[in-house]
Amino acid sequence: MRILGIDPALRTTGYGVVERQNGRVRLIEAGVVAPNVHATLEQRLRELHSGICEVIAQTQPSLVVIEELYTYKNPRTALLMGHARGVLCLASAQAGIDVRTLGHAHVKRALVGSGSARKEQVNAMVTRLLGLRRAPKPHDVSDALAIALAFLNMADSQSALRFGNPAPFNRHSALRAARPPRAKPVGPPNVR
Amino acid sequence: MRILGIDPALRTTGYGVVERQNGRVRLIEAGVVAPNVHATLEQRLRELHSGICEVIAQTQPSLVVIEELYTYKNPRTALLMGHARGVLCLASAQAGIDVRTLGHAHVKRALVGSGSARKEQVNAMVTRLLGLRRAPKPHDVSDALAIALAFLNMADSQSALRFGNPAPFNRHSALRAARPPRAKPVGPPNVR
Repeated sequence: MRILGIDPALRTTGYGVVERQNGRVRLIEAGVVAPNVHATLEQRLRELHSGICEVIAQTQPSLVVIEELYTYKNPRTALLMGHARGVLCLASAQAGIDVRTLGHAHVKRALVGSGSARKEQVNAMVTRLLGLRRAPKPHDVSDALAIALAFLNMADSQSALRFGNPAPFNRHSALRAARPPRAKPVGPPNVR
Repeated sequence: MRILGIDPALRTTGYGVVERQNGRVRLIEAGVVAPNVHATLEQRLRELHSGICEVIAQTQPSLVVIEELYTYKNPRTALLMGHARGVLCLASAQAGIDVRTLGHAHVKRALVGSGSARKEQVNAMVTRLLGLRRAPKPHDVSDALAIALAFLNMADSQSALRFGNPAPFNRHSALRAARPPRAKPVGPPNVR
């Protein structure tokens, strides 16, 4: 199961591809797509779309998980963020890949056990699960990896439940138990 | 100057292509793109995107004018509408066509002279300007044509100002003076 996690934004969209095979979680690729901030909105959307299309073509994920956007206080911000998220969803659909959505709190809960966990706790868990030497930077990359890892963790939990696993259910066991692969530092991330 | 006006929505996006040549305004094509309401968000975005790409390829507009979305009271609605508008902007950028944005009130003011004009007044003006027998239906088509016509009108006003037209400036004169072509009823509109 290879997951592409995306932390959507108009300025810097983070992405992270992780794979789970034989109980091990492996980092495939991570980086950011950062459209030219001086370009028009439609040009930025085009860069964002083609950047993610390239990532999908090269890493061939089986599923795309895109973070649900906050419901911003300012509806104009929500509108603009929606533009970015729209072209990311489109890129996945065009590649024939299903999209799942995860809320911010769900990501934290699945990784650290609390929906109100601090960013540093999530970062530390991402670093540990992927066996990295240091936390991925910029934070957009770490956030995208957190989304992918959280989904893997939740998917694993759900399949354990589906097969009637009688053991006390621990949302984190699957990922925590996995021995991380040899360290593959992320930084500097790919900037597309 | 051939303008594609778009009234963006996730459920039913209206579009209308009008052309101004030798002082005459002509309807080229109008219709709606209505993605399957039972499909997933990303599938609907894909249908919306491919529908508008098809319209652009077939009608070859020189400019796309997309209505600015309201700042909805509910930020979740704004977010979803932003998704739709994002893939429409993307389709234009991918075709190498510039995008302009017009607010709802600007459209009304440019066509009827008041930003608070009623929908029926705008409809009536669209029908008259294009020499149609009846108002285009559904309203999404009429709204999209209103956007395109409003832009043509404003562009014309601006060029008149730029060339220092000394005559008393009348925002509507250019379009009102145009003799409409032979009636070409819109309905039933193209549904893509």
